[in-house]
Amino acid sequence: MKISVVKNILEANDRIAQDNRALFDEKDLTVINLMSSPGAGKTTLLEKTIDALKEDVRIGVIEGDIQSSQDAERIAHKGIPVVQINTGGACHLDGNMIRATFHEFDFDALDLLVVENVGNLVCPAEFKVGEDFKVMILSVTEGDDKPSKYPLMFHESKVLLINKIDLLPYVDCSIDIIRTEALKINPHLTLFEISCKTGEGLESWYTWLKDKVRKRRPAFIAKE
Amino acid sequence: MKISVVKNILEANDRIAQDNRALFDEKDLTVINLMSSPGAGKTTLLEKTIDALKEDVRIGVIEGDIQSSQDAERIAHKGIPVVQINTGGACHLDGNMIRATFHEFDFDALDLLVVENVGNLVCPAEFKVGEDFKVMILSVTEGDDKPSKYPLMFHESKVLLINKIDLLPYVDCSIDIIRTEALKINPHLTLFEISCKTGEGLESWYTWLKDKVRKRRPAFIAKE
Repeated sequence: MKISVVKNILEANDRIAQDNRALFDEKDLTVINLMSSPGAGKTTLLEKTIDALKEDVRIGVIEGDIQSSQDAERIAHKGIPVVQINTGGACHLDGNMIRATFHEFDFDALDLLVVENVGNLVCPAEFKVGEDFKVMILSVTEGDDKPSKYPLMFHESKVLLINKIDLLPYVDCSIDIIRTEALKINPHLTLFEISCKTGEGLESWYTWLKDKVRKRRPAFIAKE
Repeated sequence: MKISVVKNILEANDRIAQDNRALFDEKDLTVINLMSSPGAGKTTLLEKTIDALKEDVRIGVIEGDIQSSQDAERIAHKGIPVVQINTGGACHLDGNMIRATFHEFDFDALDLLVVENVGNLVCPAEFKVGEDFKVMILSVTEGDDKPSKYPLMFHESKVLLINKIDLLPYVDCSIDIIRTEALKINPHLTLFEISCKTGEGLESWYTWLKDKVRKRRPAFIAKE
């Protein structure tokens, strides 16, 4: 009984996510669903990525938080369109919540939409929002046992950004173990080792992301 | 409709948690529900606490993880009773899961039962398991905006352990902001600043916890 309720909720969400996806396709919009534990660095990565790409790529952001609008305010400082969703307790974003923001955006004027999910390494991985792909961040401060303990997130993600590598000298965490264990769960995972603080490794991520946007909308990014 | 389903689940869980609580009371057992984001240091804190208290306090542990038994194995090395619950996807422990472990323990031979919840700063706060009180850990690497972004966990907890203070020189995080914001949400919160790595601050936590166990079972801890 309980299981069937959960299954129905997930199936209903998948249908709404498909509808969202159809609209994004029509608009040639690249959409990423950005996920991590609380405090792994989603908003900081987003700020850096906006700074690096905004001359070439028109970016919009949906900020998901249980409560507060601090993250949306940080993004708004970058002068790009941003909508805050407050879930009011819910531990993840779903297709309907994303859909409810559509009237706030002019999708014809965007190339990339980033959905920053609620900080949670579990539930967001179960709910599609209509994204092209999921991107997850793992901070080295969380430890190298996370892939084997939270496998779904690693399984569902296309990209794993291993963040805060500047802290490696001070924590007990092996990047090799993270890599090995994560690739065991998902051999197709693209990995980047980054530090949003020092900037190390970020250029490769920017290049990769711009390339994805360019593939969908080759006419737009003509500057390079 | 959706809200009523969630409400029924929570109410059903509250009833089971009350039944658990009644049994723990009968056995004069102190029970804590330990919660945090992934990688904030729950298992390490538990290892340290067991080492420090085990001469005086008979401790049992329930380990909650989505998958894997790494944490239970770490605790088993301490030579105390431990049971691993694998939730198989679920993002929190509930009263029923705890109840299902009861036949594995001899509660007459325990003074303190620690339930280590799934690493998640959101959902576990909603589900009682029959604990005397909730203890949460926040790592300074997660940032000082967490109380205002994840208020329920701070609201429900009796104790906040601010961990990894040895990393303060390397991260942008103000302990003062954490204190102020957390106490705004929950003025009754007891705070400890700790480093499981260096041991700083842990003595106060041990003393506080032993005192709680002693109150319930004064006859047992006679050594001091």
